[in-house]
Amino acid sequence: MHSIPAWHEIAEELIDVAVGRKPADLVVRNAAWVNVHSREVLKNSDIAVSNGRFAYCGADAGHCVGADTVIVEADGMYAVPGLCDGHMHIESGMLTPARFAEAVIPHGTTTLFADPHEIANVLGLQGVRLMHDEALLQPINIFMQMPSCIPSAPGLETPGATIRVEDVEEAMRWPGIIGLGEMMNFPGIVSGDGHLLAEIAAARAAGKTVGGHYASPDLGADFHAYAAGGPADDHEGTREADAVMRIRQGMRCMMRLGSAWYDVEKQITAVTEKGLDPRGFILCTDDCHPGTLVGEGHMDRVVRHAVTCGCEPLVALQMATLNSAAHFGLEREIGSIAPGRRADFILSSCLRTLPVEAVYARGRHLAENGGLLVATTHGDWPEHALRMVNLKRDLVADDFCIKAPGNTGEVAVKVIGVVENQAPTKHLQTTLAIRDGRVEGCRERDICQIALVERHRGTGGVINAFVSGFGYTGRMALASTIAHDSHHMIVVGTDREQMALAANRLAAVHGGMTIWRDGGELALVELPVAGLMSQRRARDVAAEAGRLSAAMAECGCQLNNALMQHSLLALPVIPELRISDLGLVDAVDFRLTSLFSEI
Amino acid sequence: MHSIPAWHEIAEELIDVAVGRKPADLVVRNAAWVNVHSREVLKNSDIAVSNGRFAYCGADAGHCVGADTVIVEADGMYAVPGLCDGHMHIESGMLTPARFAEAVIPHGTTTLFADPHEIANVLGLQGVRLMHDEALLQPINIFMQMPSCIPSAPGLETPGATIRVEDVEEAMRWPGIIGLGEMMNFPGIVSGDGHLLAEIAAARAAGKTVGGHYASPDLGADFHAYAAGGPADDHEGTREADAVMRIRQGMRCMMRLGSAWYDVEKQITAVTEKGLDPRGFILCTDDCHPGTLVGEGHMDRVVRHAVTCGCEPLVALQMATLNSAAHFGLEREIGSIAPGRRADFILSSCLRTLPVEAVYARGRHLAENGGLLVATTHGDWPEHALRMVNLKRDLVADDFCIKAPGNTGEVAVKVIGVVENQAPTKHLQTTLAIRDGRVEGCRERDICQIALVERHRGTGGVINAFVSGFGYTGRMALASTIAHDSHHMIVVGTDREQMALAANRLAAVHGGMTIWRDGGELALVELPVAGLMSQRRARDVAAEAGRLSAAMAECGCQLNNALMQHSLLALPVIPELRISDLGLVDAVDFRLTSLFSEI
Repeated sequence: MHSIPAWHEIAEELIDVAVGRKPADLVVRNAAWVNVHSREVLKNSDIAVSNGRFAYCGADAGHCVGADTVIVEADGMYAVPGLCDGHMHIESGMLTPARFAEAVIPHGTTTLFADPHEIANVLGLQGVRLMHDEALLQPINIFMQMPSCIPSAPGLETPGATIRVEDVEEAMRWPGIIGLGEMMNFPGIVSGDGHLLAEIAAARAAGKTVGGHYASPDLGADFHAYAAGGPADDHEGTREADAVMRIRQGMRCMMRLGSAWYDVEKQITAVTEKGLDPRGFILCTDDCHPGTLVGEGHMDRVVRHAVTCGCEPLVALQMATLNSAAHFGLEREIGSIAPGRRADFILSSCLRTLPVEAVYARGRHLAENGGLLVATTHGDWPEHALRMVNLKRDLVADDFCIKAPGNTGEVAVKVIGVVENQAPTKHLQTTLAIRDGRVEGCRERDICQIALVERHRGTGGVINAFVSGFGYTGRMALASTIAHDSHHMIVVGTDREQMALAANRLAAVHGGMTIWRDGGELALVELPVAGLMSQRRARDVAAEAGRLSAAMAECGCQLNNALMQHSLLALPVIPELRISDLGLVDAVDFRLTSLFSEI
Repeated sequence: MHSIPAWHEIAEELIDVAVGRKPADLVVRNAAWVNVHSREVLKNSDIAVSNGRFAYCGADAGHCVGADTVIVEADGMYAVPGLCDGHMHIESGMLTPARFAEAVIPHGTTTLFADPHEIANVLGLQGVRLMHDEALLQPINIFMQMPSCIPSAPGLETPGATIRVEDVEEAMRWPGIIGLGEMMNFPGIVSGDGHLLAEIAAARAAGKTVGGHYASPDLGADFHAYAAGGPADDHEGTREADAVMRIRQGMRCMMRLGSAWYDVEKQITAVTEKGLDPRGFILCTDDCHPGTLVGEGHMDRVVRHAVTCGCEPLVALQMATLNSAAHFGLEREIGSIAPGRRADFILSSCLRTLPVEAVYARGRHLAENGGLLVATTHGDWPEHALRMVNLKRDLVADDFCIKAPGNTGEVAVKVIGVVENQAPTKHLQTTLAIRDGRVEGCRERDICQIALVERHRGTGGVINAFVSGFGYTGRMALASTIAHDSHHMIVVGTDREQMALAANRLAAVHGGMTIWRDGGELALVELPVAGLMSQRRARDVAAEAGRLSAAMAECGCQLNNALMQHSLLALPVIPELRISDLGLVDAVDFRLTSLFSEI
């Protein structure tokens, strides 16, 4: 259960404080109250807190002050509601919920709406529950959405577990579950897939919000059909027209600024120029890597960015507070500084640059000038969840051999083509040489090998193929157990020996990312929690991930988001060519395809 | 149960229609779509309906049209979401839910948020259930709030039934209950009354909205304490400052235009001039008499009025649609024209004057140019609910005698002073003559008798006192079983014989209002349903009520809302002097008081 009593359980105390019969626990004096209900700044305001909730907000709270009341002199600073991330995946930070909370609290984030989609691909419902339970231990609010699409591409991949309708029904009864996670299978909704509609029905029958994910530029009948299916929000829009259409259809438009998503600037003009009612717009991050959290910020960064895109600061703040809360039916619980709500707030000296000078959640002082003042609590991860890289045996170079179909000297093959700054890949075709009965990559033409190593059930399965675009030189390999969405292991390399070394290394450390050259390890990020997350601090993980990126560059890779490109190569829902544990995937026609081209 | 399936139960059909696989039931062509989400008018829009819900809203819905699809050519008319009354009492219309629905549908009202407070005072939980069950039979949406304050003034009156916390808990499980009715006992909340807070807790534990009612101009600590107690809205504000304060405290500001409430004009400046975010403002009627419904309209009248007060039509419409729906957690169910929502809409040729040219609810064509096209369904009222005027025996003139405390020739008495156009009364003091041991009213000084006749338990109780301000002349009496809040019977007259005749007449017809002069009945409104409502048509009841008002004027009464003034004389929660079944009530100090003044 949440560690804060319900408003109605402590209403009597709040009344007593508001009217002056009992002293408040905390009183903030002389703040510029950012009122997101009225959309005003109210100077010279006092705010009284009792039992973790706001009890009194208004002029002089002198009558709420007793001998033991903690007084905070705001000296005219803005009191801003704690920031909410309307849609995000904790796993993208490579951190457990406790470590993620630790990283974002100093940035003023006091609420996350988190979809544990990644761990659910590894550990299924149990993984969701582990995230959920650790989330409830945090000093900020982490509401969980139950992942909806696992596998994300049925028949084209084998995740560590699947989510059934009964799992969704069960999760809807857990205290921290706020809705259904992003309904990524939009073609499934448009075609009326019964399993997906049953998941939506389970969430709606429980009164919960259904998350959307419509990743297509088509705003015609398919989009309308998706909206008619029930998803209540979408964060996949990238253009003003996407934003406008979602709002008109009665969906929330979630605008992302993540580590690699830049979807606020193009869409926010729907408000700043087209003049749409802003209440349906919500800011979110979707995916933030540890380096972004440590170096740039979190929701403070998103709000700041929205303001630089021309959005009024008070409107931008509504998009990161009240709008998000209202969307999830939590308007009377979080998202504003008003009586009864959780006492989550920031003190800041400027609404445009939004420095986060102090952070309070549930009335507790959590951070000051970027420094965390409290420890977050780790959950109880069972041993097996920390040993989720299950190879049947140590791999050897031969496991990465691609046998030629004949003895023709060369052969026509399909190659996954990485495209700079884009998630979709190209479906390339080329001819490769055969040596000793094996098809060989070609360093000169930047064609190296890629392998999908099964890691959930210890099947010993290795799927081998070719990839182009990383620019690797020398004898090297990079392996990662972050491998969306099924999260097996992706190994990319110029040399089969190095590929085996890298894969075995991740098995030994129970997951993460490692890069090898000439028989030695250049960098390692250990992510033993389900092979996705670390229990260490954000800055340590970020530093390691930084060294890994640097090593990739040393090996010749000049891509902007090289690690992300690597980790998305097994994502069969995005065109054009992907790899999975079942084989090479034609992600245009959504079917398995052979490595060797037909003439 | 509501007669419309849940969105998620028919999602597949909606998808099929939206994408063009199945034909819609109804398609509106070429409408100017009033989009309350984006706050835009979208010309040349089509709207497709299936299974009572919107399936497709956008450009050309030709793909949704089949051989059996009903086509409505809007010819450019505005398609407006059906109007919602955010807070109201059906009983004020003197009509049952079926008859009330019949009266308001042609005015474009498709949703009522109704608090059956009046019948609950007569029949308790059973009365609420009877209203609730009839409400669910209607072709429009009537959501019920569970009344919270019965009695409204504990210790000062005896209603026909009381509402316990267990009753609230039970009602929260009924399908049509949307929240807790207006928390009128605001001093009780401020003092932390356990019973009231337990009712709020029961509603909140069920996830329902708690209605407010803070009828005081004091915006200091008491108001803040009330907000901290949990009521989520308030409709008792009358000034801009009231509106502003409610919004700032995170409450909804409900603005009334009822038959006798004119609270929009003064408060809407908070939006139109002060520029507050309008999303927290909601339009409502609170109380509409049948004459208003028949002669002036319902929510169409309120929206029209808001526009004449300077509000942008689209903003005013949001206040009567989306804002109301969102407040009650029904944003994905009603309040907008968007996929999945109940297909409740109006066609109108002008957003400023808002003529209601056609009304559809759940996709059914209910009214055209003011004429109703369907019959509403009556509930199953048990016989005893139609016989709720239980006098112990026929009354006689002597029952209205006020015995003098001594034989002094004259005596100092307290007199209830009616004030034109105001709900509060004056606590007057004067001296009256004693004749034959009885204290007599004084026609010359406009002091006549008032009696509170017990009618719920047949106790035979009659409380006699004096009232001034009606201006009655001649030998007359007016009796009414609409007698807020306990709804016994209030009889006001210049002559004890006439008072007995009037009271007995209401007993014979099982409630209503009657006026007598010189032994003959001038006018009668029969309200046999709990002594509050009629099962006849609004226009018939309105005509009778009109004749009654005319008869009051014939008898010398020149007050603007004479009937309402009469019916409020037993309401002990509004200052200064009232009458109840327990005696004369000092409604300033909230205690019973003697009729005779102390020297």
